[in-house]
Amino acid sequence: MASGRKPISENNLTQWIAGQAARGSGTRLLRGIGDDCAVFRAPGAKEDLLFTSDFLIEDIHFRRDTHPADAVGHKALARGLSDIAAMGGGPRFCLLSLALAPWTDERWVKRFFSGFLKLARRTATTLAGGDLAHTEKLTCDVMVCGAVPRGRALRRDGARAKHTVYVSGRLGKPWQKHLRPEPRLDFGRQLIGLASACIDLSDGLSLDLARLLKASDVAAVVDDVPIRSGSTLEQALHGGEDYELLFTMPPGVKPPRGSIRIGEIAKGPAGAVEFRGRPLPALGYDHFR
Amino acid sequence: MASGRKPISENNLTQWIAGQAARGSGTRLLRGIGDDCAVFRAPGAKEDLLFTSDFLIEDIHFRRDTHPADAVGHKALARGLSDIAAMGGGPRFCLLSLALAPWTDERWVKRFFSGFLKLARRTATTLAGGDLAHTEKLTCDVMVCGAVPRGRALRRDGARAKHTVYVSGRLGKPWQKHLRPEPRLDFGRQLIGLASACIDLSDGLSLDLARLLKASDVAAVVDDVPIRSGSTLEQALHGGEDYELLFTMPPGVKPPRGSIRIGEIAKGPAGAVEFRGRPLPALGYDHFR
Repeated sequence: MASGRKPISENNLTQWIAGQAARGSGTRLLRGIGDDCAVFRAPGAKEDLLFTSDFLIEDIHFRRDTHPADAVGHKALARGLSDIAAMGGGPRFCLLSLALAPWTDERWVKRFFSGFLKLARRTATTLAGGDLAHTEKLTCDVMVCGAVPRGRALRRDGARAKHTVYVSGRLGKPWQKHLRPEPRLDFGRQLIGLASACIDLSDGLSLDLARLLKASDVAAVVDDVPIRSGSTLEQALHGGEDYELLFTMPPGVKPPRGSIRIGEIAKGPAGAVEFRGRPLPALGYDHFR
Repeated sequence: MASGRKPISENNLTQWIAGQAARGSGTRLLRGIGDDCAVFRAPGAKEDLLFTSDFLIEDIHFRRDTHPADAVGHKALARGLSDIAAMGGGPRFCLLSLALAPWTDERWVKRFFSGFLKLARRTATTLAGGDLAHTEKLTCDVMVCGAVPRGRALRRDGARAKHTVYVSGRLGKPWQKHLRPEPRLDFGRQLIGLASACIDLSDGLSLDLARLLKASDVAAVVDDVPIRSGSTLEQALHGGEDYELLFTMPPGVKPPRGSIRIGEIAKGPAGAVEFRGRPLPALGYDHFR
């Protein structure tokens, strides 16, 4: 983190904002603050629309000396697409707000767009607009709109005791994946109608699992974690930036191919995780810690 | 501008991006890059949805020593609402991405949200989500979603020769208005079915008029400009941040109350403006100049 320690965590600030925003709220959203995406139902529409926005900021989410411009463009869009995947949606379009730093030249900008638009085309995400500015540190904020069949969006709050907990792939952060994370859009769509809860692993298994459990008001027992080759158990538990999906299935429901079982939902204090017989602290990446 | 001069202007970069984005685009948007908002029609929906995103960045769009925190929150949302007004829409919800600076404390954040949410409630704009981070300069990016009856969104490209050019109020930048600009949402809705083209005045009359004229492939003759008390003609012509609406009406169509006629559309080079017998250069605020 570039800034000093703050007395308020991202989770706490988000909760405070959610409380403030709810007072006297106008439009009825199916989901607002507190899930991977907001869910909006337009009058008469056949699909529900999903909305998410994610920053990608120099020296916070990427470094100029280690991330090629096209990888920055890729990642700026991949973060939002991963949120769409976590709700089971398909992307429709995006807005890109881009504030260039003093060091940015035309060559860098063109390579940034090359990476951004390559992923956009491959996932059928139209770049529909945005904003341009200058600032000290290069800053992208990408809003992605996705769609999901009416009332079928995956949520965080449906996990119940005895449901099985899965991840969509091995965890831990190899360099190539850190540079160009692949949003699990196809995998997310396969979970519709099957998963009882889902979240994407952007801030680390321990923190994102705690968020899912708190939203569902349950606890979990994790037996095992699949570790990606070259990574440590610590990285797989707390590392962040995996962009795999973490989800739960009611007993007897068969998960999609590639799913890896890591544990089971249990009754207990909301958010509590037991790993190999001990409490697992939520040490994942909190942007405000 | 905090950064050095660039060889590329905002208009030029926007055009280049629009060209790149259009290649192999997936989703059919009714309008993409190049208007105040993108326009999306969800299958079966009765209304078209409008989308816009706008930065508000410390030392670019506001200064910490002159802008109270609640005015920063107000303005962060007002910029997007003004884009919705320019398309004749009503706001539905917004996403706020907020990156705090090292100097930001809890008191400032709470006042920021007080200003943001006061305007949000008054305009029935639900805060539905967003992102939080830290960076060097305080940075907000606000996405606003609005709605307009199917096929009725106001656009920039419908001005034709002999149409009359109006503004929704006097121009020039008094301090109070600069701090808490009032988006002209009611005025914009009254223009639906009447105006042939519309744009909001965020970057100055001379630049925004040139944008409307280029989109419509016409020129204009401006006879007069209504100057706000305490402002100069220069400020009214090139000052920016008025957040009034600039629009055109076919001959014989009566404009809403409060409209002020400033000139007439003419055949001629796209974007050219004649003011009091001389060419008016587009000197408004280009974020990249």
